[in-house]
Amino acid sequence: MTEMIPPCFILVRPQMGENIGAAARAMLNFGLERMRIVDPRDGWPNPKAVAMASGAGRLLDMAGLFDDVPGSIADCDYVFATTARSRELVKPVVTPERAMEMTRAMAAEGKRVGILLGPERAGLENEDVALANAIVTVPVNPEFPSLNLAQCALLIGYEWRRQTEEVAPEIMGLARTEFASRLEVERLSDHFEEKLDLAGFFYPPDKAPHMKLNLRNMFARLGLTRAEVQTFHGMLRQIAYKLRQQGE
Amino acid sequence: MTEMIPPCFILVRPQMGENIGAAARAMLNFGLERMRIVDPRDGWPNPKAVAMASGAGRLLDMAGLFDDVPGSIADCDYVFATTARSRELVKPVVTPERAMEMTRAMAAEGKRVGILLGPERAGLENEDVALANAIVTVPVNPEFPSLNLAQCALLIGYEWRRQTEEVAPEIMGLARTEFASRLEVERLSDHFEEKLDLAGFFYPPDKAPHMKLNLRNMFARLGLTRAEVQTFHGMLRQIAYKLRQQGE
Repeated sequence: MTEMIPPCFILVRPQMGENIGAAARAMLNFGLERMRIVDPRDGWPNPKAVAMASGAGRLLDMAGLFDDVPGSIADCDYVFATTARSRELVKPVVTPERAMEMTRAMAAEGKRVGILLGPERAGLENEDVALANAIVTVPVNPEFPSLNLAQCALLIGYEWRRQTEEVAPEIMGLARTEFASRLEVERLSDHFEEKLDLAGFFYPPDKAPHMKLNLRNMFARLGLTRAEVQTFHGMLRQIAYKLRQQGE
Repeated sequence: MTEMIPPCFILVRPQMGENIGAAARAMLNFGLERMRIVDPRDGWPNPKAVAMASGAGRLLDMAGLFDDVPGSIADCDYVFATTARSRELVKPVVTPERAMEMTRAMAAEGKRVGILLGPERAGLENEDVALANAIVTVPVNPEFPSLNLAQCALLIGYEWRRQTEEVAPEIMGLARTEFASRLEVERLSDHFEEKLDLAGFFYPPDKAPHMKLNLRNMFARLGLTRAEVQTFHGMLRQIAYKLRQQGE
């Protein structure tokens, strides 16, 4: 099987070191480690980027430094340009979802995909976008599009992981839980019925069967744990004890 | 039809005003405007939150202020707690994707869904999580989970919009483009063939038909615009003119 190469994030002429560091953190959140930097405004390495990246500093250490965009994408088989502005350039425009579907398919074939992310203020130049195969645009609120560099990296990284990780939408948490058996649930229903019967809860008598059915249905549905069933038994016993005391 | 109520983001005991403002921006990016604040550390209103929110300040103006979590979710039909840490509490854990699928389904029935987001450092307390119906966890890299409040709001907002907006994965950009007609493309192929024939390009003669077929296939595939076709015609004419000059 061909090794799947995760996409490379290429930061084009980034300005603030903090944003480079934040982009590294955003990437590593979703397991992406391949970063390239093109002509950073404040030189390289950048201490502010390192400080902001903290646990993700290794991405910066490994990042390739390039003078220009053509050099940074020379070994890429396919390149996306991230940009929000509509362009005069004729180029397919896709959502992050579709872009990562395409990336996943290409990566599975051993192809290398690069994603160009523009500088903070101005975004990518038309000359940069012209070098890409397609444009990725996050479908933001057209009245308030304010995504920054790290947020853009975060959303694309999220899509990559959402599509490639074997995470069930219901992640779990329940698998390890010791739920009560059906028999234990039935005994709890019996116990409730018995004590509520003594308390005269099932009234009038012709409604009693329906009330009891509803009660059983509820306990069957709730998904109680073994411990919770024991707690209920204890509650019932204690209440019964108290009632007996008061009755004496 | 019942009106669809977008989910409400409930910031529980937020600390830094900047983070409240950043969360408001993240929400508005994806068209979400319903925010509630529970017991903010630095009081309310918070000038730093307003400064950070800038264009999204209106969310802060409209945000409901609550003393405690139970009050903030009293009118909700269903509540998600966002937390990364695994808990001892027995509670379904879902991805943002599934959480927004559920929210969309409930909102379509006119139900109100609230999403609890914890304070920056510690996250939600077990007491807060116990009040929720389910937990949302972003499937981050377990070796580097570093999502902050605004990033969490951003990812959930992104999922909401991804699922509810009618945005095709190929957003478009191509719809408005004036592509060349098939006839124009064919004439360009003819023009290329004619000039290349004159230049002696199709050699040896027995390979010529195949070379010509490949050329036609390429032009048919490229998706050239009308303007690009004209450019190619101009290039061919100019080259032919130059060759004639040199031949004189």
